[in-house]
Amino acid sequence: MKKALAFDIGGTKIYSSIIDESGKLLTEPEKFATPKNIDGIKDLLKKQIQSHEDEIDIVAIATAGAVNNENTAVIGSTGNLTEGYYTIDFQKLSTKPVFLENDANSAAWAEYKIGASKGSNVSVMLTLGTGVGGGIIINDKILKGKSGAAGEMHFKMYPDKRRKCSCGSWDCYEAYASGTGLKHTAEELLNDKNITTYDIISGLQSGDEKCTKVFNKWQDDVTAGIIGLANIFDPDCVVLSGSMAQFVNSKKIETEVNAEIVTTPTSVRIATAGNYSGMIGVALLALAEV
Amino acid sequence: MKKALAFDIGGTKIYSSIIDESGKLLTEPEKFATPKNIDGIKDLLKKQIQSHEDEIDIVAIATAGAVNNENTAVIGSTGNLTEGYYTIDFQKLSTKPVFLENDANSAAWAEYKIGASKGSNVSVMLTLGTGVGGGIIINDKILKGKSGAAGEMHFKMYPDKRRKCSCGSWDCYEAYASGTGLKHTAEELLNDKNITTYDIISGLQSGDEKCTKVFNKWQDDVTAGIIGLANIFDPDCVVLSGSMAQFVNSKKIETEVNAEIVTTPTSVRIATAGNYSGMIGVALLALAEV
Repeated sequence: MKKALAFDIGGTKIYSSIIDESGKLLTEPEKFATPKNIDGIKDLLKKQIQSHEDEIDIVAIATAGAVNNENTAVIGSTGNLTEGYYTIDFQKLSTKPVFLENDANSAAWAEYKIGASKGSNVSVMLTLGTGVGGGIIINDKILKGKSGAAGEMHFKMYPDKRRKCSCGSWDCYEAYASGTGLKHTAEELLNDKNITTYDIISGLQSGDEKCTKVFNKWQDDVTAGIIGLANIFDPDCVVLSGSMAQFVNSKKIETEVNAEIVTTPTSVRIATAGNYSGMIGVALLALAEV
Repeated sequence: MKKALAFDIGGTKIYSSIIDESGKLLTEPEKFATPKNIDGIKDLLKKQIQSHEDEIDIVAIATAGAVNNENTAVIGSTGNLTEGYYTIDFQKLSTKPVFLENDANSAAWAEYKIGASKGSNVSVMLTLGTGVGGGIIINDKILKGKSGAAGEMHFKMYPDKRRKCSCGSWDCYEAYASGTGLKHTAEELLNDKNITTYDIISGLQSGDEKCTKVFNKWQDDVTAGIIGLANIFDPDCVVLSGSMAQFVNSKKIETEVNAEIVTTPTSVRIATAGNYSGMIGVALLALAEV
């Protein structure tokens, strides 16, 4: 069975593991702090690749940022990674083929192949983490758009400039449906600048009334966005992943979505492909190419 | 060259013409008032089909409402057409094959084949009329979704219930970016329940300050929705069609969209396939099947 050396490159951590064509992790994932400069990232990847190059058929990299339609390079800047990250020529780091895909798209592919959206012709995956990622799969293909950047969950929750988004624009879904969005909703509703996402989640879990109210407002915003996406894509299912997904009531969201959409009912599910779905997804995509 | 007898079935009017594989109208389009009951609609179609059946290869019907993925039937109810419209067995009306597609999808296909989005791998078409229609084309295929109902422009402009939408839900893009939406924006900004869409457009054209302000607010809402769609689909272009499209400043919208999106720039264009784009699009789709 063919094998990929998979990476998941994020703003704070880089993970690495060897993964086979069934999506199985053959090595315990290694975890590194993301270096603060381009050379540091290149050196880290190079070292990992060199020590495993003989065992693998392809290098598969799930990364923050948009990846071009040729799966060879990151396009444009990614707020969370060092400036100029997109200039890295990843193929130069290995004698084996190197394949890149955006991390949310990769995770969506893992859900589609071995997880919650398996068998779905049309699925929308939302990663509810520090930000919000999107991965849309239509008829066995990731929706990439003209340049590879499709699936960005920066549609507006309000048209009239209330909350700044990390992308530089205003009131994007990401600014409301993310963990950061939960903090901002808490700040606004509780009039407390110092409250954290963690405070709200702890309060929710211990049954605190104020925290529950804040969380429910946040979940209503998550739901409002899913209603729009369900009307636009008419998907078989919407999969919720990321650190915040474990706290949502997916059945409640599903009921509310299906009560409002004009299309036939959809299914709202929590992701099942696990914490390493980014690496698994990109490995499966890459291994289909060799 | 093969020919289709094309229909465009809307809530108030039905159009009909014979169209060839190049998208050329071979007969002057006929126009009928849409009958108020199912039998009336069936009789009208049957009579038209019988008088042209010998000259054509297929019957091609662009219709209000979602059309299934087999292109054989309307699914669910369509607010603008008589109750039970979706129960019509269109194939029974002709001895030639009958092919159906949603009217906005059909118009988007015409733009893609002979109009404003020709050559675009990824395009989003918005029909700004009494309502808002959507037709999304990705890699030579109309985005249909699991049941055929994708492309519905019912994503939310506000999450907190301000303006009722024709779909029964609240604050959908359609409720703001349509001609009806312009009337409601005018009602709100001018505090005048009796003002019409026509009043605002007339005022805009004669340079009236209040009407211009209302129209600009409406156009800002149109723009806000396009920003979201451009981030989701990363399209080569966004095409604006329908009766309201002639009044918008597409260059201004394009500039504002490109200033806000996280993907590479897109192009915002006015439709060019003409008033009969629905019939042309469905004819081209149908003729590719025979």
